[in-house]
Amino acid sequence: LLRHSNVRVTYLAAATTTGTLNSIHPEFLDQTKLSCEKFKIQKAQKICDALFVAVPHTQAMNIVPELIKADKRVIDLSADYRFPKASEYKKYYGHEHTDKANLSKAVYGLPEIYREEIKHAQLIANPGCYPTSAILGLLPLTSTFSENIQQIIIDAKSGVTGAGKKLTNHLMFSEVNENLKAYKVLSHQHKPEIENQINKMAGHMIPLAFVPHLVPMNQGILSTMYLFVKKPLSLAHIHKIYKNFYKTEPSVRILPLGQQPETKNVFETHYCDIGLAIKDHLIVVTSAIDNLMKGAASQAVQNMNIMYGFQENLGID
Amino acid sequence: LLRHSNVRVTYLAAATTTGTLNSIHPEFLDQTKLSCEKFKIQKAQKICDALFVAVPHTQAMNIVPELIKADKRVIDLSADYRFPKASEYKKYYGHEHTDKANLSKAVYGLPEIYREEIKHAQLIANPGCYPTSAILGLLPLTSTFSENIQQIIIDAKSGVTGAGKKLTNHLMFSEVNENLKAYKVLSHQHKPEIENQINKMAGHMIPLAFVPHLVPMNQGILSTMYLFVKKPLSLAHIHKIYKNFYKTEPSVRILPLGQQPETKNVFETHYCDIGLAIKDHLIVVTSAIDNLMKGAASQAVQNMNIMYGFQENLGID
Amino acid sequence: LLRHSNVRVTYLAAATTTGTLNSIHPEFLDQTKLSCEKFKIQKAQKICDALFVAVPHTQAMNIVPELIKADKRVIDLSADYRFPKASEYKKYYGHEHTDKANLSKAVYGLPEIYREEIKHAQLIANPGCYPTSAILGLLPLTSTFSENIQQIIIDAKSGVTGAGKKLTNHLMFSEVNENLKAYKVLSHQHKPEIENQINKMAGHMIPLAFVPHLVPMNQGILSTMYLFVKKPLSLAHIHKIYKNFYKTEPSVRILPLGQQPETKNVFETHYCDIGLAIKDHLIVVTSAIDNLMKGAASQAVQNMNIMYGFQENLGID
Amino acid sequence: LLRHSNVRVTYLAAATTTGTLNSIHPEFLDQTKLSCEKFKIQKAQKICDALFVAVPHTQAMNIVPELIKADKRVIDLSADYRFPKASEYKKYYGHEHTDKANLSKAVYGLPEIYREEIKHAQLIANPGCYPTSAILGLLPLTSTFSENIQQIIIDAKSGVTGAGKKLTNHLMFSEVNENLKAYKVLSHQHKPEIENQINKMAGHMIPLAFVPHLVPMNQGILSTMYLFVKKPLSLAHIHKIYKNFYKTEPSVRILPLGQQPETKNVFETHYCDIGLAIKDHLIVVTSAIDNLMKGAASQAVQNMNIMYGFQENLGID
Repeated sequence: LLRHSNVRVTYLAAATTTGTLNSIHPEFLDQTKLSCEKFKIQKAQKICDALFVAVPHTQAMNIVPELIKADKRVIDLSADYRFPKASEYKKYYGHEHTDKANLSKAVYGLPEIYREEIKHAQLIANPGCYPTSAILGLLPLTSTFSENIQQIIIDAKSGVTGAGKKLTNHLMFSEVNENLKAYKVLSHQHKPEIENQINKMAGHMIPLAFVPHLVPMNQGILSTMYLFVKKPLSLAHIHKIYKNFYKTEPSVRILPLGQQPETKNVFETHYCDIGLAIKDHLIVVTSAIDNLMKGAASQAVQNMNIMYGFQENLGID
Repeated sequence: LLRHSNVRVTYLAAATTTGTLNSIHPEFLDQTKLSCEKFKIQKAQKICDALFVAVPHTQAMNIVPELIKADKRVIDLSADYRFPKASEYKKYYGHEHTDKANLSKAVYGLPEIYREEIKHAQLIANPGCYPTSAILGLLPLTSTFSENIQQIIIDAKSGVTGAGKKLTNHLMFSEVNENLKAYKVLSHQHKPEIENQINKMAGHMIPLAFVPHLVPMNQGILSTMYLFVKKPLSLAHIHKIYKNFYKTEPSVRILPLGQQPETKNVFETHYCDIGLAIKDHLIVVTSAIDNLMKGAASQAVQNMNIMYGFQENLGID
Repeated sequence: LLRHSNVRVTYLAAATTTGTLNSIHPEFLDQTKLSCEKFKIQKAQKICDALFVAVPHTQAMNIVPELIKADKRVIDLSADYRFPKASEYKKYYGHEHTDKANLSKAVYGLPEIYREEIKHAQLIANPGCYPTSAILGLLPLTSTFSENIQQIIIDAKSGVTGAGKKLTNHLMFSEVNENLKAYKVLSHQHKPEIENQINKMAGHMIPLAFVPHLVPMNQGILSTMYLFVKKPLSLAHIHKIYKNFYKTEPSVRILPLGQQPETKNVFETHYCDIGLAIKDHLIVVTSAIDNLMKGAASQAVQNMNIMYGFQENLGID
Repeated sequence: LLRHSNVRVTYLAAATTTGTLNSIHPEFLDQTKLSCEKFKIQKAQKICDALFVAVPHTQAMNIVPELIKADKRVIDLSADYRFPKASEYKKYYGHEHTDKANLSKAVYGLPEIYREEIKHAQLIANPGCYPTSAILGLLPLTSTFSENIQQIIIDAKSGVTGAGKKLTNHLMFSEVNENLKAYKVLSHQHKPEIENQINKMAGHMIPLAFVPHLVPMNQGILSTMYLFVKKPLSLAHIHKIYKNFYKTEPSVRILPLGQQPETKNVFETHYCDIGLAIKDHLIVVTSAIDNLMKGAASQAVQNMNIMYGFQENLGID
């Protein structure tokens, strides 16, 4: 945001971490005089037009209602507003939703589906990193050929920053480095988030399984997706479908046939790179994003740009 | 082998790399006076009882016939003797097989299937690393419940040493580090090797797909396997099947329910660790090995131990 | 350069690698239509105003003379023009210098020393990565207190990209990962390059030793420098010297007292971060750069900006 | 210890972590039935002959006196008994020493210096990881040519496990990976530990500076040591001194001239590898150990072996 030509950062706040930005993140030394203050909702309401809320789930729904009430526009990076139904939120996150009023107003911030709604939204639920990667990879088929798809498997692999900065044992260097594992097998909370969007676009329910893995690297998600189809399609045909589907999208790149995405090619970029393969009734879609960019921060900025009618890639490229 | 109480290393040879072992691999300094010589088949025939042949595919079948003729016992780590049919070898490796006589005598060196045959074998085809990981993970279900399995997907992830020490651009540190990618999607040569064994044990053909990935770490393979079954089983039931199937096997560990294997838990060990999960008609089996150990070297020693009637884990633990 | 507002890339060429830029570096997909051609000096002379020459040493001096003759401005990233004397080049790089005429015209492209000369230079010798890190860390003391300094030790640590993209065994992932070593101990060719600049600014010779190390990461150099001084200075005094020395420099950041630089804080930036400590007669200066940025590419662009009177950080930030 | 032929592990205990060993460290699955209990000094006294105490400093001196009183032999891996003087302990660790009686009985457990004392010791202070690496590298010169040495600099680099398993932000994967930094510059608590031993063997005080660095890898320490000598020696001469000094030592390997140690060559081994270089008055000694092995655990076992008259490398190789 510091480089965004249409934005002035007026307020930077956190629950506990305070001080000059460069004392918290030394890479900002000599680049800004911004300080991070203890969050006060009144101040936020007073000096901001739009707010990025990046707090753990269940905490966002304590803050957002006050901001909405004060007519602010909000881009929330937690999971609190990603499910249209409070009952789903309770089911998957284990907490009663306390802001049902705004839940129904929130727009799921994936511009590739909801660009029009985002323009006029007051509250954006910025998508999860795994869901962004998976949905973008699946969408061209599930929204146009859904009746042909019998089953979807998403085998997703992520670098560690996807889990945030929590101080937990399994994110220590000595636990992650030179190690590889699956976790929350068939029970990760991002599965229903993916399912919601896929089924909504498909118009009916497609069986879907999701298994995430932790990979020893900082940034990057690669989702390898397996789609069983009733009638085989040619690879060239599928490739055309993908190219067409995203032809006006600035953030999605369909790789030339025969190429596969690599997370380093999208590292620190806003791109989602997609590769394709097929054998008989099985289509394999691979999709790579930087979980901190298109999977979180730059997608939030893209949403803000759309909300304010700015050029969509301002401050992102 | 230097620590194996029943083995004396009498001959160490290579095509081009020669010199004292510690000049080639400095970690052996002061541990051995062994030297690596330019390979001469006559010398090998003269001073060895058993030989480990670890050369690229197509080169093994130039060496092995002479060794077999001289009544030596051979454990070949290449792919040259892994397929029962020369036509399959040609199909997947693109070369005519020039030693069909021995091809039919070779035993696939996976003790968990072929222990009895290995005892009397003169020629062992030591399994590939991906196949070892995948077959061990699938076997309990595919060999006992095969008629219930409709489709298998193997999403495999490997550290870089699985690819050998070839000097290729895509194995450079700067290419692998902080990167993740799928490669040879649906076209890797280990797929038919897996299929051969699975179908043979099942007694019929089960549709199977294989997608390997390269992960930024040295050693370790994690295979995440998805099996679609006609009739769901309970997780406890499947767990019991696995525990029973491997109850006398020294190298396979079935994790307690709810746990998932991690490659670091099998790092530099001979173990294959297996985890299980199920949701409706989808069983997810995860299997971890060290590709240099159970996936190559220690499996070769295990095979030798069986061939000579030694205790199976001598020199391995 | 693609984002540099005052630059148009008209020619991209290499000795052997050719094709569209995104076929060579897939991260450029959909970002440019540039292709890399086989280098032809006539074409370079015809369609370029300024050229970045990034070829191995000894090859630059075959290309540069023709470009200079054609009145082009050249920024050379090799070592060929970094030594004022051909005899030194021969001594440290083992080759006769074949372009002595231009050698004397070349300006060493470290703006913090030679900004005025760079403005009017036709040929820039872009500094080595280790020398940039070391010289910037040493300069404030060696150019102002040189008579007080008895001895300097530079213990430098670098990620692998400092060595270029050579396909050599010791840069393979499995050799670098989880490993750490010193190399070319007291005999690295960057030592005389550092010495040249330090002694020139000091006005006399200061004994200096240099030991580089290879660290398992992609980018970043940390140089830990030990200076023995005759008369101790207070840490606050030294800190002031450094702050003053670089007060107008956009690329150098002196850390607050008590802080130490980390390579991740300068990752993908043009900064050189410097930390200080002292105990009695020993001053410890630590300096961190990104070897691909201030240690190579962005410094080359900074030099170009200065040569053309552009804003110095254009295309760099 | 589980593989040590002369040891039976009778008691495994911790302050807070309890349960079966394989629930705490899954790599032990199916290998042992050992459980870790909440530490009770009475039980330790009752069922153990010798104890390895591996608790944070200041906590060891609460446990050790009771064990000594009960006539147990103790190998303590904390810093509590490494300094002969309680005043030094207080100075460097900031705590009053509460077990001065045993402090004077403790033997510093570096067999290369104190093998004879270790044989009869009841209490061993197992050395720190940095000190082991540094002292072994310096000893041949500082104990035989000390009057010729003017100054020593130790620039040490360590993987993250040297810092233990503390849950601190700076040991998180995302902080360590792709990063490099110096820390506790000239103020690390291992410096006086090194100094103590070096000066004792030298018979007088040699000025010494110590700067540690954190490197993105799990295991391994490389210490690059710079010794300024009054009279230059030939490299061959120094090499001979080192070879002779360690000729009967099983754990120290002096590399052939021209070679440099790499941490991967000592990974998971008990070796300390040492390399040498010289230019004029500056000798550069590089020394590599695995911080978890010779730098901690295997050195503790080596000490136990010596205490009990076992073969020194039992359970270590």
